[in-house]
Amino acid sequence: MNLLLNCDIGESFGAWTMGLDAEVMPFIDCANVACGFHASDPQIMRRTVALAAQHNVRIGAHPAYPDLVGFGRRSMACSPSEVENMLLYQIGALDGICRAEGTRVSYVKPHGALYNDMMRQPDLLRAVMRAIKAYDATLPLMLMSTRDNGASQALAAELGITLWFEVFADRAYDAAGMLVSRSLPGAVHHDAETVAAQALTLAKGEPLTASDGSALVLQADTLCVHGDNAGSIAAVQRIRQALQELAA
Amino acid sequence: MNLLLNCDIGESFGAWTMGLDAEVMPFIDCANVACGFHASDPQIMRRTVALAAQHNVRIGAHPAYPDLVGFGRRSMACSPSEVENMLLYQIGALDGICRAEGTRVSYVKPHGALYNDMMRQPDLLRAVMRAIKAYDATLPLMLMSTRDNGASQALAAELGITLWFEVFADRAYDAAGMLVSRSLPGAVHHDAETVAAQALTLAKGEPLTASDGSALVLQADTLCVHGDNAGSIAAVQRIRQALQELAA
Amino acid sequence: MNLLLNCDIGESFGAWTMGLDAEVMPFIDCANVACGFHASDPQIMRRTVALAAQHNVRIGAHPAYPDLVGFGRRSMACSPSEVENMLLYQIGALDGICRAEGTRVSYVKPHGALYNDMMRQPDLLRAVMRAIKAYDATLPLMLMSTRDNGASQALAAELGITLWFEVFADRAYDAAGMLVSRSLPGAVHHDAETVAAQALTLAKGEPLTASDGSALVLQADTLCVHGDNAGSIAAVQRIRQALQELAA
Amino acid sequence: MNLLLNCDIGESFGAWTMGLDAEVMPFIDCANVACGFHASDPQIMRRTVALAAQHNVRIGAHPAYPDLVGFGRRSMACSPSEVENMLLYQIGALDGICRAEGTRVSYVKPHGALYNDMMRQPDLLRAVMRAIKAYDATLPLMLMSTRDNGASQALAAELGITLWFEVFADRAYDAAGMLVSRSLPGAVHHDAETVAAQALTLAKGEPLTASDGSALVLQADTLCVHGDNAGSIAAVQRIRQALQELAA
Repeated sequence: MNLLLNCDIGESFGAWTMGLDAEVMPFIDCANVACGFHASDPQIMRRTVALAAQHNVRIGAHPAYPDLVGFGRRSMACSPSEVENMLLYQIGALDGICRAEGTRVSYVKPHGALYNDMMRQPDLLRAVMRAIKAYDATLPLMLMSTRDNGASQALAAELGITLWFEVFADRAYDAAGMLVSRSLPGAVHHDAETVAAQALTLAKGEPLTASDGSALVLQADTLCVHGDNAGSIAAVQRIRQALQELAA
Repeated sequence: MNLLLNCDIGESFGAWTMGLDAEVMPFIDCANVACGFHASDPQIMRRTVALAAQHNVRIGAHPAYPDLVGFGRRSMACSPSEVENMLLYQIGALDGICRAEGTRVSYVKPHGALYNDMMRQPDLLRAVMRAIKAYDATLPLMLMSTRDNGASQALAAELGITLWFEVFADRAYDAAGMLVSRSLPGAVHHDAETVAAQALTLAKGEPLTASDGSALVLQADTLCVHGDNAGSIAAVQRIRQALQELAA
Repeated sequence: MNLLLNCDIGESFGAWTMGLDAEVMPFIDCANVACGFHASDPQIMRRTVALAAQHNVRIGAHPAYPDLVGFGRRSMACSPSEVENMLLYQIGALDGICRAEGTRVSYVKPHGALYNDMMRQPDLLRAVMRAIKAYDATLPLMLMSTRDNGASQALAAELGITLWFEVFADRAYDAAGMLVSRSLPGAVHHDAETVAAQALTLAKGEPLTASDGSALVLQADTLCVHGDNAGSIAAVQRIRQALQELAA
Repeated sequence: MNLLLNCDIGESFGAWTMGLDAEVMPFIDCANVACGFHASDPQIMRRTVALAAQHNVRIGAHPAYPDLVGFGRRSMACSPSEVENMLLYQIGALDGICRAEGTRVSYVKPHGALYNDMMRQPDLLRAVMRAIKAYDATLPLMLMSTRDNGASQALAAELGITLWFEVFADRAYDAAGMLVSRSLPGAVHHDAETVAAQALTLAKGEPLTASDGSALVLQADTLCVHGDNAGSIAAVQRIRQALQELAA
């Protein structure tokens, strides 16, 4: 499988616009579409799904904690049962919108604090997988690739869920394969060539150099890119070009 | 077809309880399940769907305007496009929950102010039907039966939608087949025998006596019942018994 | 009294930005600050109030129907009692934020659909005035000036409320002093000089020419300006300059 | 000062009712009134404030995290600045409603998860105090009494805030003066006489016996009581009677 480029999409809300969806859509493979809990609403979801369908971009549900004010970035002490059911609700809602545009949800990537919490709390990861299994067990779950993905792979095998491991080209990793905190120097790569080079390394399955100097090989099914502004669009184009040259 | 008893169900929200769902469920055919816009949340929807499935009660989506504080009873100036998409969202969300309980949404009944507005505004009725057609054209739409259902039948035929006409046993009708306003005397039947008698008349396809004394025949596919309190449960049981005696 | 320039301010929400608040603030007299029902949240309100205070701009409560998705632009069938209490809530909330920046709410201007509904429904206008009277009867209410303001003036006199009549420099008026519908040609003035000229005419108390050619004198206490984009900022500056030349 | 009985009040929402507010109001001193973030809405707040005013019960703001679905019981990762501003918003909103009933907010008690988080995180406690100081530094803050209240007293002294220490008559305490977890046996006292006896002990400033057998003296300014159901109302009456006998 090629390294799929995934991007958060459809994060406007009501009268408020966010993101350059139309500009980034031509360069990505997978659109993580907000489902109304951290961003978006039925009107925007409809427009977003239509745009993705027009570009033959896979549509993923991007479910979140119910926190519009906090954009789903604030951890909330939700129970596994609450997480399972809020996922079913949001995946279903997006899938309902998809039907009206002749398409369907084809994967799931939890958003923001829910993504982070699921990586740290096995009971929440299980809840996410239970929701996917109940909704449609063939939908892959995007989650973060780390040095050792064994625990999540074991859970996924138990529940019969496919995993797509996500990597980042614009972030430094520590020895455990976790992202270096943004508060530390060197955590974020700002140079487009550095970012494209890390994308290529990941796509080829070659080791990165972790922040402690150790070699780090990450399973990489999909790469997270951004469509926030002109700079990030340019970065996506550069990555896309590098991957195409690799494939050629 | 028999006269199906439909009831609003699953209208609790968060820590707040409303309705005697468990008590009324054994006596109804169709549960109009709130979808989170006027009432309910993913946890309550899951519990509600499980209860309906256990009693082999058909599950209907009960979509509403986005107005929890007003319980979906306040008309909102939403565009047809907004109505279409909020229906797709809510039907899909409930259907997502249904999948986790091995069942599916099997009809649609708009709630409260949206139901009333759709009966008065053809562009909103068309929006509702467009949502159903896009989601699953085989799902019947419950709407209010009046003396002349021709306009809604023509629209349904155009869009390929099945209609289930709803009647009321506890309300007086005017000559046009509209409900007499609750502000007028005699608008609501409080006597259980009167209610059961009207249910039987409707089930047999016989004419009611409208408020002006004229005979009123209403197409009756489903009868609206209530599970709010002990009195309404008793009324449902009385109606169920009367219908069973008719069928026997 | 001079013609006060009022502008909707603080209409961002959570992670979403709207309006060029910092750019327009130096040129206005009155900031209509969103209170969390159609836009804004406590963080944004705090930042907005601080910005207004820094520029010595009067802070007005800009209360709305509870409709974030619709930005308060969709009419909702709220009762007068509901309107009265939602105003008390929103005025108080903003005033609470103001206290932390050493200032206070100094007038009230309902937003969007609530503004329009209040102009058409006397029971809602009375509800708005009752809220102001209960909160602080010295706070002026901004409302739309029309040819005949007698009815609202009589109501305000009865309740002891001060009115500030609002006019528009970028809109055509009909003979009744109502805004010409945006769907009609010539409804909106796009030329900066035309807008500034209409502002001057209004400031001098001279008659406008209504859409039917008749002369229209409008009581003008405050003029609505916009801070949405660079063009509207330029228009505000042009109006401010024209008013200063008039005063000089 | 007498031991004030405080009770959560006004926790209905929209069409949903919770609590026996009218029944418990005659027996309490302080009503912790929900402000719309975890429960209540402007209509219910108005009704609640009127009821409290009628019984000469002090009205306290009961601000919470923005989480209606979770009733404010789920911890959310809000920043100190967010907490400070959401408190200003909620206190102000309730005070706005109070003005219409001729009364004012007279103290503050954070609700649910925010109460618990503030007891554990000094930066959140400081944020709460900063909000109170900015709004009206004379409003006391209710917080939980523990064996050693020194840290919160030092913070309150620094900011010039009055503290009212809250105790519980129906809960067992551990040696640190923290409530024994509900998951442990003996954590909750169900017997009315035991509850009344603990209330008396606290009112007299005598030591309780902590769960490890040690003597525990708690500063006790106010006692938390409940108005959920008939049993809790009876318990409040029993406590009130015991306190009156003590005072006599």
